[in-house]
Amino acid sequence: MDDARTRLIESTRELLWERGYTGTSPRAIQERAGVGQGSMYHHFAGKADLARAAIRSTAQEMVPRSRAHLEGPGTPLERLRAYLRAERDALRGCRVGRLVQDAEVVADASLREPIDEVFSGTLQRLAAVLREGQAAGEVRADVDAGQVAAALLSVLQGAYVLARAHQDPARFTAAVEGVLALVAAPR
Amino acid sequence: MDDARTRLIESTRELLWERGYTGTSPRAIQERAGVGQGSMYHHFAGKADLARAAIRSTAQEMVPRSRAHLEGPGTPLERLRAYLRAERDALRGCRVGRLVQDAEVVADASLREPIDEVFSGTLQRLAAVLREGQAAGEVRADVDAGQVAAALLSVLQGAYVLARAHQDPARFTAAVEGVLALVAAPR
Repeated sequence: MDDARTRLIESTRELLWERGYTGTSPRAIQERAGVGQGSMYHHFAGKADLARAAIRSTAQEMVPRSRAHLEGPGTPLERLRAYLRAERDALRGCRVGRLVQDAEVVADASLREPIDEVFSGTLQRLAAVLREGQAAGEVRADVDAGQVAAALLSVLQGAYVLARAHQDPARFTAAVEGVLALVAAPR
Repeated sequence: MDDARTRLIESTRELLWERGYTGTSPRAIQERAGVGQGSMYHHFAGKADLARAAIRSTAQEMVPRSRAHLEGPGTPLERLRAYLRAERDALRGCRVGRLVQDAEVVADASLREPIDEVFSGTLQRLAAVLREGQAAGEVRADVDAGQVAAALLSVLQGAYVLARAHQDPARFTAAVEGVLALVAAPR
Protein backbone atom coordinates (compact mmCIF):
# COMPACT_ATOMS: atom_id res chain seq x y z
CA MET A 1 0.00 0.00 0.00
CA ASP A 2 1.13 3.53 -0.75
CA ASP A 3 3.03 4.94 2.21
CA ALA A 4 1.55 8.48 2.01
CA ARG A 5 -1.96 7.00 1.84
CA THR A 6 -1.31 4.89 4.96
CA ARG A 7 0.13 7.86 6.84
CA LEU A 8 -2.86 10.01 5.88
CA ILE A 9 -5.32 7.43 7.21
CA GLU A 10 -3.33 6.91 10.42
CA SER A 11 -3.09 10.68 11.04
CA THR A 12 -6.82 11.10 10.43
CA ARG A 13 -7.57 8.28 12.88
CA GLU A 14 -5.49 9.95 15.57
CA LEU A 15 -6.90 13.42 14.97
CA LEU A 16 -10.51 12.21 14.91
CA TRP A 17 -9.92 10.55 18.26
CA GLU A 18 -8.24 13.60 19.76
CA ARG A 19 -10.25 16.46 18.28
CA GLY A 20 -13.34 14.98 16.62
CA TYR A 21 -14.45 15.52 13.04
CA THR A 22 -15.32 19.23 13.21
CA GLY A 23 -12.09 19.93 15.08
CA THR A 24 -9.90 18.23 12.46
CA SER A 25 -8.79 20.32 9.50
CA PRO A 26 -7.35 18.95 6.22
CA ARG A 27 -4.25 21.01 6.95
CA ALA A 28 -3.77 19.36 10.37
CA ILE A 29 -4.04 15.94 8.73
CA GLN A 30 -1.44 16.88 6.12
CA GLU A 31 0.90 18.25 8.77
CA ARG A 32 0.68 15.21 11.00
CA ALA A 33 1.10 12.86 8.05
CA GLY A 34 3.96 14.89 6.60
CA VAL A 35 2.15 14.81 3.26
CA GLY A 36 1.50 17.75 0.93
CA GLN A 37 -1.91 19.01 -0.12
CA GLY A 38 -1.48 17.72 -3.69
CA SER A 39 -0.67 14.21 -2.49
CA MET A 40 -3.63 14.24 -0.10
CA TYR A 41 -6.06 15.18 -2.86
CA HIS A 42 -4.46 12.60 -5.15
CA HIS A 43 -5.43 9.87 -2.68
CA PHE A 44 -8.66 11.25 -1.18
CA ALA A 45 -11.48 13.50 -2.41
CA GLY A 46 -11.43 15.49 0.85
CA LYS A 47 -11.85 15.36 4.60
CA ALA A 48 -15.05 13.27 4.53
CA ASP A 49 -13.43 10.70 2.24
CA LEU A 50 -10.41 10.45 4.54
CA ALA A 51 -12.65 10.18 7.60
CA ARG A 52 -14.57 7.30 5.97
CA ALA A 53 -11.31 5.44 5.39
CA ALA A 54 -10.20 6.16 8.97
CA ILE A 55 -13.51 4.97 10.47
CA ARG A 56 -13.40 1.80 8.35
CA SER A 57 -9.85 1.12 9.48
CA THR A 58 -10.77 1.64 13.15
CA ALA A 59 -13.82 -0.61 12.82
CA GLN A 60 -11.68 -3.33 11.26
CA GLU A 61 -9.55 -3.28 14.41
CA MET A 62 -12.34 -3.00 16.96
CA VAL A 63 -14.77 -5.61 15.72
CA PRO A 64 -12.38 -8.61 15.82
CA ARG A 65 -11.25 -7.53 19.29
CA SER A 66 -14.79 -7.49 20.66
CA ARG A 67 -15.55 -10.82 18.95
CA ALA A 68 -12.47 -12.33 20.55
CA HIS A 69 -13.90 -11.49 23.98
CA LEU A 70 -17.57 -12.26 23.34
CA GLU A 71 -17.06 -15.38 21.26
CA GLY A 72 -13.90 -16.54 23.01
CA PRO A 73 -13.40 -19.15 25.73
CA GLY A 74 -15.16 -19.11 29.09
CA THR A 75 -18.72 -19.15 30.33
CA PRO A 76 -21.15 -16.51 29.00
CA LEU A 77 -20.76 -14.35 32.13
CA GLU A 78 -16.97 -14.66 31.99
CA ARG A 79 -17.05 -13.51 28.37
CA LEU A 80 -19.26 -10.51 29.20
CA ARG A 81 -16.85 -9.59 32.00
CA ALA A 82 -13.84 -9.98 29.71
CA TYR A 83 -15.45 -7.72 27.11
CA LEU A 84 -16.55 -5.01 29.54
CA ARG A 85 -13.30 -5.08 31.54
CA ALA A 86 -11.01 -5.16 28.48
CA GLU A 87 -8.45 -2.43 28.75
CA ARG A 88 -9.85 0.84 27.48
CA ASP A 89 -8.42 4.31 27.51
CA ALA A 90 -11.16 5.76 29.72
CA LEU A 91 -9.97 9.36 29.53
CA ARG A 92 -9.57 9.39 25.75
CA GLY A 93 -13.01 8.00 25.03
CA CYS A 94 -14.25 5.64 22.34
CA ARG A 95 -12.70 6.09 18.91
CA VAL A 96 -16.02 5.63 17.16
CA GLY A 97 -18.57 6.66 19.81
CA ARG A 98 -17.09 10.13 20.29
CA LEU A 99 -17.67 10.87 16.59
CA VAL A 100 -21.47 10.64 16.75
CA GLN A 101 -21.59 13.60 19.12
CA ASP A 102 -20.49 15.57 16.07
CA ALA A 103 -23.38 17.12 14.13
CA GLU A 104 -21.44 16.93 10.85
CA VAL A 105 -20.88 13.19 11.26
CA VAL A 106 -24.52 12.47 12.04
CA ALA A 107 -25.63 14.59 9.06
CA ASP A 108 -23.52 12.50 6.64
CA ALA A 109 -24.90 8.96 6.30
CA SER A 110 -21.65 7.71 4.76
CA LEU A 111 -19.84 8.65 7.99
CA ARG A 112 -22.59 7.67 10.42
CA GLU A 113 -23.47 4.28 8.94
CA PRO A 114 -20.13 2.52 9.45
CA ILE A 115 -20.26 3.60 13.12
CA ASP A 116 -23.82 2.35 13.43
CA GLU A 117 -22.73 -0.98 11.93
CA VAL A 118 -20.09 -1.45 14.63
CA PHE A 119 -22.65 -0.72 17.36
CA SER A 120 -25.42 -2.83 15.82
CA GLY A 121 -23.10 -5.82 15.41
CA THR A 122 -21.90 -5.48 19.00
CA LEU A 123 -25.49 -5.29 20.27
CA GLN A 124 -26.35 -8.53 18.47
CA ARG A 125 -23.32 -10.32 19.89
CA LEU A 126 -23.99 -9.01 23.41
CA ALA A 127 -27.63 -10.12 23.25
CA ALA A 128 -26.59 -13.61 22.07
CA VAL A 129 -24.14 -14.03 24.97
CA LEU A 130 -26.73 -12.71 27.43
CA ARG A 131 -29.26 -15.28 26.18
CA GLU A 132 -26.65 -18.04 26.54
CA GLY A 133 -25.97 -16.84 30.07
CA GLN A 134 -29.67 -16.81 30.87
CA ALA A 135 -30.03 -20.37 29.61
CA ALA A 136 -27.03 -21.38 31.72
CA GLY A 137 -28.45 -19.68 34.85
CA GLU A 138 -25.52 -17.24 35.10
CA VAL A 139 -27.33 -14.13 33.88
CA ARG A 140 -30.48 -12.73 35.41
CA ALA A 141 -33.28 -14.50 33.54
CA ASP A 142 -36.25 -12.15 34.07
CA VAL A 143 -34.94 -9.40 31.78
CA ASP A 144 -35.01 -8.77 28.03
CA ALA A 145 -31.61 -9.67 26.53
CA GLY A 146 -31.93 -7.09 23.72
CA GLN A 147 -32.65 -4.26 26.15
CA VAL A 148 -29.88 -5.34 28.51
CA ALA A 149 -27.45 -5.50 25.55
CA ALA A 150 -28.33 -1.86 24.80
CA ALA A 151 -27.79 -1.02 28.47
CA LEU A 152 -24.36 -2.72 28.52
CA LEU A 153 -23.12 -0.93 25.41
CA SER A 154 -24.53 2.36 26.73
CA VAL A 155 -22.65 1.89 29.99
CA LEU A 156 -19.37 1.61 28.08
CA GLN A 157 -20.11 4.70 25.99
CA GLY A 158 -21.44 6.73 28.90
CA ALA A 159 -18.69 5.68 31.29
CA TYR A 160 -16.21 7.48 29.04
CA VAL A 161 -18.28 10.66 29.44
CA LEU A 162 -18.27 10.38 33.25
CA ALA A 163 -14.55 9.60 33.37
CA ARG A 164 -13.67 12.51 31.10
CA ALA A 165 -15.86 14.94 33.07
CA HIS A 166 -14.21 13.89 36.36
CA GLN A 167 -10.78 13.28 34.77
CA ASP A 168 -10.66 9.98 36.62
CA PRO A 169 -10.72 6.49 35.08
CA ALA A 170 -12.20 5.18 38.37
CA ARG A 171 -15.58 6.55 37.27
CA PHE A 172 -15.36 4.30 34.20
CA THR A 173 -14.51 1.23 36.27
CA ALA A 174 -17.31 1.91 38.78
CA ALA A 175 -19.94 2.04 36.03
CA VAL A 176 -18.69 -1.18 34.41
CA GLU A 177 -18.55 -3.06 37.72
CA GLY A 178 -21.98 -1.72 38.65
CA VAL A 179 -23.67 -3.07 35.54
CA LEU A 180 -21.77 -6.37 35.70
CA ALA A 181 -23.04 -6.91 39.25
CA LEU A 182 -26.59 -6.26 38.03
CA VAL A 183 -26.30 -8.65 35.10
CA ALA A 184 -25.22 -11.64 37.18
CA ALA A 185 -28.03 -13.89 38.34
CA PRO A 186 -28.78 -13.37 42.05
CA ARG A 187 -27.65 -16.29 44.20
CA MET B 1 -30.80 41.69 32.97
CA ASP B 2 -29.33 43.18 29.83
CA ASP B 3 -31.14 41.87 26.78
CA ALA B 4 -28.05 41.44 24.58
CA ARG B 5 -26.31 39.53 27.37
CA THR B 6 -29.29 37.18 27.74
CA ARG B 7 -29.47 36.61 23.98
CA LEU B 8 -25.73 35.89 23.82
CA ILE B 9 -26.00 33.25 26.56
CA GLU B 10 -29.09 31.66 24.99
CA SER B 11 -27.44 31.53 21.54
CA THR B 12 -24.29 30.00 23.01
CA ARG B 13 -26.37 27.35 24.81
CA GLU B 14 -28.08 26.38 21.57
CA LEU B 15 -24.89 26.34 19.51
CA LEU B 16 -22.97 24.30 22.10
CA TRP B 17 -25.76 21.72 22.02
CA GLU B 18 -25.91 21.63 18.23
CA ARG B 19 -22.26 21.93 17.27
CA GLY B 20 -20.17 21.49 20.41
CA TYR B 21 -17.53 23.89 21.70
CA THR B 22 -14.93 23.51 18.96
CA GLY B 23 -17.66 23.80 16.29
CA THR B 24 -19.01 27.07 17.72
CA SER B 25 -17.35 30.30 16.55
CA PRO B 26 -17.73 33.71 18.23
CA ARG B 27 -19.10 34.96 14.92
CA ALA B 28 -21.83 32.29 14.85
CA ILE B 29 -22.84 33.28 18.41
CA GLN B 30 -23.03 36.96 17.43
CA GLU B 31 -25.10 36.16 14.34
CA ARG B 32 -27.58 33.97 16.17
CA ALA B 33 -27.91 36.48 19.00
CA GLY B 34 -28.18 39.42 16.60
CA VAL B 35 -25.50 41.17 18.62
CA GLY B 36 -22.42 42.94 17.29
CA GLN B 37 -18.84 42.00 18.08
CA GLY B 38 -18.33 45.12 20.22
CA SER B 39 -21.35 44.34 22.37
CA MET B 40 -20.26 40.70 22.77
CA TYR B 41 -16.82 41.70 24.03
CA HIS B 42 -18.41 44.32 26.29
CA HIS B 43 -20.30 41.54 28.10
CA PHE B 44 -17.88 38.61 27.81
CA ALA B 45 -14.11 38.21 27.61
CA GLY B 46 -14.45 35.68 24.77
CA LYS B 47 -15.83 32.31 23.74
CA ALA B 48 -14.68 30.46 26.87
CA ASP B 49 -16.27 33.09 29.12
CA LEU B 50 -19.55 32.84 27.19
CA ALA B 51 -19.44 29.04 27.31
CA ARG B 52 -18.96 29.13 31.10
CA ALA B 53 -22.06 31.30 31.44
CA ALA B 54 -23.99 29.00 29.08
CA ILE B 55 -22.95 25.84 30.95
CA ARG B 56 -23.89 27.44 34.30
CA SER B 57 -27.27 28.44 32.92
CA THR B 58 -27.90 24.91 31.57
CA ALA B 59 -26.84 23.35 34.88
CA GLN B 60 -29.21 25.67 36.78
CA GLU B 61 -32.06 24.24 34.70
CA MET B 62 -31.03 20.58 34.76
CA VAL B 63 -30.21 20.09 38.43
CA PRO B 64 -33.61 21.15 39.83
CA ARG B 65 -35.32 18.95 37.22
CA SER B 66 -33.36 15.86 38.23
CA ARG B 67 -33.94 16.65 41.92
CA ALA B 68 -37.67 16.93 41.28
CA HIS B 69 -37.65 13.34 40.00
CA LEU B 70 -35.20 11.80 42.44
CA GLU B 71 -36.39 13.60 45.54
CA GLY B 72 -40.05 13.83 44.52
CA PRO B 73 -43.02 11.68 45.52
CA GLY B 74 -43.19 7.90 45.03
CA THR B 75 -41.21 4.91 46.20
CA PRO B 76 -37.45 4.84 45.53
CA LEU B 77 -37.87 2.60 42.45
CA GLU B 78 -40.68 4.80 41.12
CA ARG B 79 -38.43 7.84 41.49
CA LEU B 80 -35.56 6.11 39.67
CA ARG B 81 -37.97 5.18 36.86
CA ALA B 82 -39.33 8.73 36.70
CA TYR B 83 -35.80 10.14 36.44
CA LEU B 84 -34.56 7.69 33.81
CA ARG B 85 -37.77 7.83 31.74
CA ALA B 86 -38.12 11.63 31.92
CA GLU B 87 -38.55 13.01 28.44
CA ARG B 88 -35.21 13.51 26.78
CA ASP B 89 -34.31 14.51 23.28
CA ALA B 90 -32.50 11.25 22.47
CA LEU B 91 -31.26 12.28 19.03
CA ARG B 92 -29.89 15.64 20.18
CA GLY B 93 -27.90 14.23 23.07
CA CYS B 94 -27.19 15.64 26.51
CA ARG B 95 -26.56 19.38 26.69
CA VAL B 96 -23.69 18.94 29.13
CA GLY B 97 -22.46 15.40 28.42
CA ARG B 98 -21.79 16.06 24.74
CA LEU B 99 -19.35 18.85 25.70
CA VAL B 100 -16.85 16.59 27.48
CA GLN B 101 -16.13 14.75 24.22
CA ASP B 102 -14.51 18.02 23.22
CA ALA B 103 -10.77 18.14 23.86
CA GLU B 104 -10.82 21.92 24.33
CA VAL B 105 -13.49 21.64 27.06
CA VAL B 106 -11.63 18.92 28.95
CA ALA B 107 -8.39 20.91 28.73
CA ASP B 108 -9.99 23.96 30.41
CA ALA B 109 -10.84 23.24 34.06
CA SER B 110 -13.17 26.25 34.23
CA LEU B 111 -15.33 24.63 31.52
CA ARG B 112 -14.99 21.02 32.65
CA GLU B 113 -15.59 21.54 36.39
CA PRO B 114 -19.17 22.86 36.21
CA ILE B 115 -20.06 19.81 34.07
CA ASP B 116 -18.36 17.49 36.53
CA GLU B 117 -20.34 19.13 39.36
CA VAL B 118 -23.64 18.32 37.64
CA PHE B 119 -22.59 14.69 37.19
CA SER B 120 -21.13 14.30 40.68
CA GLY B 121 -24.26 15.73 42.30
CA THR B 122 -26.48 13.44 40.23
CA LEU B 123 -24.36 10.40 41.17
CA GLN B 124 -24.77 11.21 44.86
CA ARG B 125 -28.55 11.59 44.54
CA LEU B 126 -28.85 8.39 42.51
CA ALA B 127 -26.82 6.43 45.06
CA ALA B 128 -28.98 7.77 47.92
CA VAL B 129 -32.21 6.69 46.18
CA LEU B 130 -30.69 3.30 45.34
CA ARG B 131 -29.80 2.75 49.01
CA GLU B 132 -33.32 3.73 50.05
CA GLY B 133 -34.66 1.26 47.50
CA GLN B 134 -32.36 -1.46 48.79
CA ALA B 135 -33.54 -0.84 52.36
CA ALA B 136 -37.15 -1.01 51.12
CA GLY B 137 -36.54 -4.28 49.24
CA GLU B 138 -37.38 -2.70 45.86
CA VAL B 139 -33.83 -2.48 44.51
CA ARG B 140 -31.47 -5.40 44.17
CA ALA B 141 -29.67 -5.53 47.50
CA ASP B 142 -26.48 -7.46 46.63
CA VAL B 143 -24.90 -4.64 44.61
CA ASP B 144 -22.88 -1.52 45.44
CA ALA B 145 -25.15 1.55 45.26
CA GLY B 146 -22.29 3.86 44.24
CA GLN B 147 -21.24 1.63 41.34
CA VAL B 148 -24.84 1.14 40.22
CA ALA B 149 -25.37 4.93 40.34
CA ALA B 150 -22.40 5.30 37.96
CA ALA B 151 -23.90 2.61 35.72
CA LEU B 152 -27.30 4.37 35.64
CA LEU B 153 -25.86 7.75 34.72
CA SER B 154 -23.60 6.08 32.14
CA VAL B 155 -26.60 4.39 30.56
CA LEU B 156 -28.25 7.77 30.04
CA GLN B 157 -25.11 9.30 28.55
CA GLY B 158 -24.30 6.27 26.40
CA ALA B 159 -27.88 5.75 25.24
CA TYR B 160 -27.66 9.11 23.47
CA VAL B 161 -24.60 7.84 21.59
CA LEU B 162 -26.41 4.66 20.47
CA ALA B 163 -29.55 6.58 19.46
CA ARG B 164 -27.58 9.14 17.47
CA ALA B 165 -25.52 6.46 15.70
CA HIS B 166 -28.67 4.57 14.69
CA GLN B 167 -30.78 7.74 14.29
CA ASP B 168 -33.49 6.07 16.31
CA PRO B 169 -34.72 7.08 19.78
CA ALA B 170 -35.81 3.45 20.34
CA ARG B 171 -32.18 2.58 21.06
CA PHE B 172 -32.25 5.09 23.91
CA THR B 173 -35.47 3.65 25.35
CA ALA B 174 -34.19 0.07 25.11
CA ALA B 175 -31.05 0.88 27.12
CA VAL B 176 -33.02 2.71 29.82
CA GLU B 177 -35.60 -0.06 30.16
CA GLY B 178 -32.82 -2.67 30.20
CA VAL B 179 -31.03 -1.11 33.14
CA LEU B 180 -34.27 -0.40 35.01
CA ALA B 181 -35.21 -4.08 34.74
CA LEU B 182 -31.79 -4.99 36.17
CA VAL B 183 -32.05 -2.56 39.08
CA ALA B 184 -35.38 -3.88 40.35
CA ALA B 185 -35.12 -6.56 43.03
CA PRO B 186 -35.90 -10.02 41.61
CA ARG B 187 -39.24 -11.37 42.77
